[in-house]
This record gives sequence, structure tokens and C-alpha cells, in this order.
Amino acid sequence: MSGRHVVAVDESTHLADDAGAGGQVDVEVDAAVRAAAGTGVGQSSRADRAAWLRALAAGLELHRDELVALAREETHLSEARLRGEVVRTATQLRFFADVIDEGSYLEATLDAPDASLVPPRPDLRRMLRPIGPVAVFAASNFPFAFSVLGNDTASALAAGCPVVVKAHPGHPRLSRRVVELAREALQGAGAPSDALGLVEGVESGVALVGHPLVSAVGFTGSTGGGRALFDLASARPAPIPFYGELGSLNPVVVTEAAAATDVDGIAAGLAGSFTRDGGQYCTKPGLVFVPEGTGFEDALCDALGTVGAQRLLTDGIGAAFAAGADRLVGLPDAELVWRGAVDPSTGEASDAPATVVAASARAVADDPHAWLQECFGPLTVLARYRDRTELDAAVAALDGSLAASIHHAPGEDISELVAALAPKAGRLVFNGWPTGVAIAWAQHHGGGWPATTASVHTSVGATAVRRFLVPVAYQDAPASVLPAELADGNPLGIPRRVDGTLVSGHQS
Amino acid sequence: MSGRHVVAVDESTHLADDAGAGGQVDVEVDAAVRAAAGTGVGQSSRADRAAWLRALAAGLELHRDELVALAREETHLSEARLRGEVVRTATQLRFFADVIDEGSYLEATLDAPDASLVPPRPDLRRMLRPIGPVAVFAASNFPFAFSVLGNDTASALAAGCPVVVKAHPGHPRLSRRVVELAREALQGAGAPSDALGLVEGVESGVALVGHPLVSAVGFTGSTGGGRALFDLASARPAPIPFYGELGSLNPVVVTEAAAATDVDGIAAGLAGSFTRDGGQYCTKPGLVFVPEGTGFEDALCDALGTVGAQRLLTDGIGAAFAAGADRLVGLPDAELVWRGAVDPSTGEASDAPATVVAASARAVADDPHAWLQECFGPLTVLARYRDRTELDAAVAALDGSLAASIHHAPGEDISELVAALAPKAGRLVFNGWPTGVAIAWAQHHGGGWPATTASVHTSVGATAVRRFLVPVAYQDAPASVLPAELADGNPLGIPRRVDGTLVSGHQS
Repeated sequence: MSGRHVVAVDESTHLADDAGAGGQVDVEVDAAVRAAAGTGVGQSSRADRAAWLRALAAGLELHRDELVALAREETHLSEARLRGEVVRTATQLRFFADVIDEGSYLEATLDAPDASLVPPRPDLRRMLRPIGPVAVFAASNFPFAFSVLGNDTASALAAGCPVVVKAHPGHPRLSRRVVELAREALQGAGAPSDALGLVEGVESGVALVGHPLVSAVGFTGSTGGGRALFDLASARPAPIPFYGELGSLNPVVVTEAAAATDVDGIAAGLAGSFTRDGGQYCTKPGLVFVPEGTGFEDALCDALGTVGAQRLLTDGIGAAFAAGADRLVGLPDAELVWRGAVDPSTGEASDAPATVVAASARAVADDPHAWLQECFGPLTVLARYRDRTELDAAVAALDGSLAASIHHAPGEDISELVAALAPKAGRLVFNGWPTGVAIAWAQHHGGGWPATTASVHTSVGATAVRRFLVPVAYQDAPASVLPAELADGNPLGIPRRVDGTLVSGHQS
Repeated sequence: MSGRHVVAVDESTHLADDAGAGGQVDVEVDAAVRAAAGTGVGQSSRADRAAWLRALAAGLELHRDELVALAREETHLSEARLRGEVVRTATQLRFFADVIDEGSYLEATLDAPDASLVPPRPDLRRMLRPIGPVAVFAASNFPFAFSVLGNDTASALAAGCPVVVKAHPGHPRLSRRVVELAREALQGAGAPSDALGLVEGVESGVALVGHPLVSAVGFTGSTGGGRALFDLASARPAPIPFYGELGSLNPVVVTEAAAATDVDGIAAGLAGSFTRDGGQYCTKPGLVFVPEGTGFEDALCDALGTVGAQRLLTDGIGAAFAAGADRLVGLPDAELVWRGAVDPSTGEASDAPATVVAASARAVADDPHAWLQECFGPLTVLARYRDRTELDAAVAALDGSLAASIHHAPGEDISELVAALAPKAGRLVFNGWPTGVAIAWAQHHGGGWPATTASVHTSVGATAVRRFLVPVAYQDAPASVLPAELADGNPLGIPRRVDGTLVSGHQS
């Protein structure tokens, strides 16, 4: 693997030094980053930024019809899905406005001096400050919610960081139009329009990660692409944090008791979840442990009979899906359970037929490299287990995922199963499905490698802002230089920790 | 620079595959890591771990005389310094016990279901869980406080992570004895003694960072060594977070008004700070901007006349100091202000004479690569500025530091200076000195590269535990599998966020 990394680093060095095409890319990227860095977004108030985020949300909603039409042309996603995604994206923007309004994300902490301690304690006041310009790599599968104005951009702007987005090539016109509207909305709200910039193309992405003024990276995409960029970020003369969300299998365990209770309901739920919007979700359940001999396969095939034709986001993704599905089907222990090439309701051929491959849990545990790779699109693998020993061995072989789900019977003791799955996933779902990631203070969208590069952080939920903040402590500072959030008397009324005790907002 | 990294990666690969000397090292490291991973520390309660930390503190204090004597033989640090450092180390251990007792570090967050949202919100409950076994690289200059039982170990154990320490070669016997006593103390407190292990030697350190069960690294040491290990951690098949504290200049600015007010007092303070314990602090002020023509140099020389002879931690550190000092003195624009080769009070020759080199701030700004390198030991550089323009240019050239200090006159407007220095340091010190890092909730010990590899986190202060924790969200979980910290009714009485509102501990 080190060989591949070395090549990636060398390529970037080459691009950076290149006076030809790479040189032109570098000039454009440099201009975008310098414009962003020059905006003074880091000195803006929380109230101002909250207003900007709400203006961005309103701008999206105002132009929803136009944007959804553009997105439909470029992504093949359904109108209903895209309209819902615009709502989601606006909700995210407003959510991060709420988070910074509330203020506890700053971790404001004050300690009074105490000369009797070893070493003596001066007056110390700590809070978080913006890290600096952030590079955001947009995703293919969420043209709004994880793209130009998606979670990474919204949380970075909320934190006080200007953003340069690297557009996803799957929806270039939409990306340009959203940036145009966003910059108008920012300007209308009194914000510097250069707080949000856009660059395009692989070489621009490489130049962006290497730019000395870029302070952090948010990325949603493939494991290969994400790893190459993570390696670049880590190999910089001054490394920067790279928050990447890469690939995820999102294992599901159906217990024997659950299958005995409601095999049809669980199978129908799985059919809906793994084929939803062409199975193009990072949270798609891609591996399902089912007990042998419960009729689960039959129930699943029944449910899949009603799934319509699918067309994937781009031709490239369609081709990769076909290759990935063929590879799994061709594995020595594989059994093809379902491949729905034709939509039975319309007779229309699908370029991405829903696919179910089955194997024994033993086979999966014995060859994890072959079986435990994400196949992006409407495919899931059923891993049949005969007993708890087989299930445990296969679970132990799992890499990190964004989510892991357990279908269990009411009152069933699943504590050992939970203990085994907990280290493998950032979110544990009970009697439900991992697709459909709610926007909430308590949400977490992360997990061990390869689900993310930085399992300690999240890209969805309130603490997504923490990725783009760094601490600063003021020692014996005169009142004139302290941020208002750290001033005596708590004039902005935010939650703070004072001499070790948490004090709610609007208390002194 | 990439060439050096490639070599480092290849060496590690080689070591890992080596069946010879490297193979033996790997076996020992593997045994230590597997023993740590098998302890079940991650499932222990906060109350239990708090008791363990307090037992470790008591064990240190109980054996203070023996340990200080051992440390004196190996480090040349003074008895007073070492006795104080044991107190500091015990205080740190108890502080992290208090932090986990209080419980808000878990970020427990509960959101009630709401089906009306897009997407619908299930019951979500989020908290932080231990990341897994942590590798800790001990420092040379704090044989207690940043070594076997130092901040990294204390915060990792507090978080619920077992630790394998890589001993610093500067105090091997002390390291072994502290581990021995610590394991006794752990066992006495009912903890698994393998919660703390020790390995020695460069090859062991490399094997530790590459071990698949190691989940994070804490490091305090040189920029070269830290960078090589950071590169290894990032190049792993599954990368892990590397929290390194490397090199720091800790710039100081003396304003014209401050110099006019109290040049003697400031010079005396600097003399004490940069020569304290042989100048062997990561927070030593290594670069001081002074206004030209204020007599600061004379005042500093007066103060340095009383500094005693110094002997550095190891012969290697002494040799590196001499080479670093010679290099600076030999720079084209350098002027040697002081080199106290003999202690005037005793006539004893010093192997690490206090050294002051001066240059113009212009020279520093024009050749930052030559001037802005840490020289570990009792040396500081005076950068003389004629006006604010010269000062600003030099400040702009600074890399990240752990601390930056401003000496200013009462009532002086220093807001622009603070704004310029704030992005360059993790802690801003006013009319004081950066040495002597207090243990407090509001402390931050971090900063941009090369001060740390991960400027978003701290190694001192309450949030040091955050480095060794990862979030997990429970979606629609049955009560039987929820951690008590997330249960209905808040049975453990910790601070939590409920439906977006922060609720203090011992409220429902």
C-alpha cells in the first residue's frame, strides 16, 4: 500500500511544480483560497453567521424548482427525492445556525487564579476559534445535502471558516448554479461573497489539499479517492486534519428470534432500504446476517418483486456497480438470490438491477477481503449463520461502518451482540434501517476506517462544527482583548464552565 | 520532504516483516498491546477508573523519595524541580479523575423522536466511548509529568483506554520503576495491571505505532521523531489519530510602551523563564521581539549574571544544544549578546551556558527558515524591531507555537497585536511568561504545526481526554442495552443535552 501513497504524493508534487496545465489549475485554486482567506469570516460574530446560514437556506428554498430540475437532468434521482433533499439541506443550514446561536459549542471555560496550586494557576479562559479556510469535497449521491451547501460547508461556515468547494463532476451545472445563488444570498445578508468559492476537476482538488492556506478538509466520496487525498493532507509540510467519509458496509444482524417473529416485515424493510434511490447511500445496508433456514431469502425475493427500475447517478457509477456485482456473484461461495434486471411493473429494463448475493457467514469470515467491500448501488449480501459462533467470527472480521443494525425480538437479550457490534460502527440502529440519517443534536455520522478517516468526529449533527475549530487559552488577559464569550459577567449569555462547574446560558 | 517520509514508511514495513531483531521486538510489542487490549478497561465504570487514577497518584507520592533520587541520577534535574514534578503528576492524575467523575466530557445527548421532521427523527442518544488501546511516547524533559504516568497516560486511562508507554531512553530505570509501582497500585485498586504496559527502544516505538490494535498515539518529543511517527500512523492501512507535541518557539512581544515602563523587570522575567531548568521546556520563550534602543539587552545581561551553571538532561541533548547555538551564532545577521560559559557565583563551568543571540526583526522575517527553529536548551533570540511594520512582517512569518506572550503597558491598545498572534499559538499570555503550564479546566497546550500535529486538540487540561474518545449514537435502542449515562431519568446525574437544551448534572 505504501507504493500507492508514494505515487500519490509524487503526483501532487509534480502538479504543484508544473508550469503547464497544472500551473493554470494552481493559479485558479490559489485565487479561490486567497479570496476565501481574505474575507475576515473568522472575525465575524456568531449572530452574523447564523443570519448568513439562514439566508442560504432561504435562497435554496426560493429556487427549489429550478435547482431540482437541474439536479434531475444531472443525477437521475427522482423529483420527490430531490425536493426532499433541498428541504433537508435547508434544515441542516438552519440547524447549524441554531447550534452557534446556543453557543456551548465554543466550550467557553473560565478558571480563576489560585496561587496555592503547583504550579500556580493564573486567570485562564479558553474557547474554540475557527481553524481557517476549509476545503470541501462534494459527494455524488447527495447533490444538495453533501454537496456545495451540504453538511461540511454549513458546519465550516457556522464555525467561522470560509469554504472552497471542489465540485463533484456528477453535477457540475447544479454546483455552479448553487454557488452563484449562495454568493448572492451571502451578499444579500451582508456577508463576504468569497466566503464560499468553487473549483472543479481532479487536479484542482489536489492543489486545494496542498494549498498552504487551507487549514482542514471535509470529504465525502470513495475509499480510493478519499485515501489519496488523506495521504496528501498528511504528507504536507504542515499536515492538516482531513475529515473523510469513505466506504461503509453497514452490517445488519437479524437474530433467530427476530426472524421467527416477523421474517416478512424485516425482509420488506431490507428490500426498501438497500434499493432506496438506487442503493446509493453511504448508509445502505450492504451485509445482512440472517439465520439459516428461516425462509428469509424467499421473503426478500417476494418484497423485491415490487422494486421499480433504477438508473444510477452517472454512467461511471453504473459501470462500477455492474463490475462490483459481477465480482461478488463470481466468488467461489456465492449464490445469486436475486437480480432484478427488468422492472416487473413496467417491463422497463434497469441499468442497475437490485441484486442479492448470499454466502455462509463462515465464507465471509474466512475471506473478509473478498466479501467485505462496499458495492455502491442496489446490492446487498446475505451472510447465513447457523449459530452464534459463526456469527461472532464474521462480526469480528468487520471493518468500521457508519451504522450497524440489529433486528431483535421484544425482550430478547442482545447485550453481547451490542458489545460485539459497538466498536464496529458509529451508530447502532435497533429494529430499524440505517438509511435516512436524521438531523439532530444527538446524531453521529462516523465510524472506524474505512467509514471515516477520523473516527473521533462526525459530519452530521451538532458536533460537526467541532472539526473546524481549535482551542485557544487566554492567560491573564486584559478585559479589552477578551472575546465577549469569555468576558466577566457572561454578557452574551452562553453556557460556560466556571471554576469547573457547568453554568447554563443566561446565568452569570 | 516527501523523500524522508517515504524512507520512514519503508523502514517500518521492513521492520514489521523482519524475522530477525525486528521480529523479536515485534513479539514483545505484540504481547504488550494484546495484554492491554484484553483488559476490558473500555467496559469499566467511570467511578472505578477515577479510583484507579487516585490510587496511581497516591502510589507516586508514597514512593516520592525513591523516585526523585532515581530521576536525579538519570536526568540532572534539581531535587526541588523533581519533587515539584511528582506533585504535579499526582495532581494531573487526580484532576482527570475529577473530570470523569463530573461526566460532561461524555457529551451525553438525547433527542426525542419526531416523525414530522424531514427526514423523521427516531429516538437518538449519543455519547463518547473509549477509542481503544493508546500508545504513549514519553518525553525526555518531564520524567514524571509527560512520561509513564504523565498527561497522555492519565487522560487515556481516564477515557477508558489501556496504555502502552514507549519509555524515553533518557530515564529508563525510572520508567521501569514507575511502571512497576503503577501496576501494583492498579492491582491494589482492583484494576487490571495490564492497563499499563511499557516497551523500550526506537524499533519498539515503530512497531507500536504500526500495531493493528493500537487505536491512537500520544507523543511528546522532537519535531523529527514526531514527524516520522506521525507519517507512520497516517500511512497505516487503517490510519489512526496521532496527537503529537513537537517543537515550539513560543514568541514573546515586548511593546515599546512596556519596555519604557519596566525594562528591568521584563528582562529579569525573561532571564528566569528561558533558563529555567536548563531551558528544557516545550514552552521556553525562544524568540523575543524587543523594540530597538531601549537598553533591553543590557538589562537582560545584568539579570543573566546570576544564573547558575546548567547541565542538560542527556549528553545527546547537550551536544544538540551546542550545535544549535553555534548555528544561530554563526548566522550572517547574528550578534552574540550573552554566552555564560562559567557560573560567576561558583566558578563552575556549565555544559549548557545561557545564550542570547540578537538580530533585526527584518533579518528574521527575511530568512525564517534559518531563524525560526527551536533550539532546545537555555537559549533565546532577541529580534529587534524599529516599528510596527517590521514587527508585523516577522510575526506573519511565524509557524505555530504552544504559547505566545505579550508584554504591554497598562491600558495600552494591543488588539491588533493580539489578532496577529492569536492564529500562531494555542495560548496567549499577557504580562507573563509561557513556562509553568497550570493544570486547569481552561488550560490548552497545543498550537499549529510544528507545535502539534493536531492543532484541534490539547495534551493538558480537561479536554485532553477528548483525544481518546469516539462518538456512538444509539437509534431506538431498548433500555436494556443503553449505557446508564444515556438512560431515562439520568440515574448517574451527569450533565446532558436533552432535546437541544443543556441540563446540569443531578437534574433529570
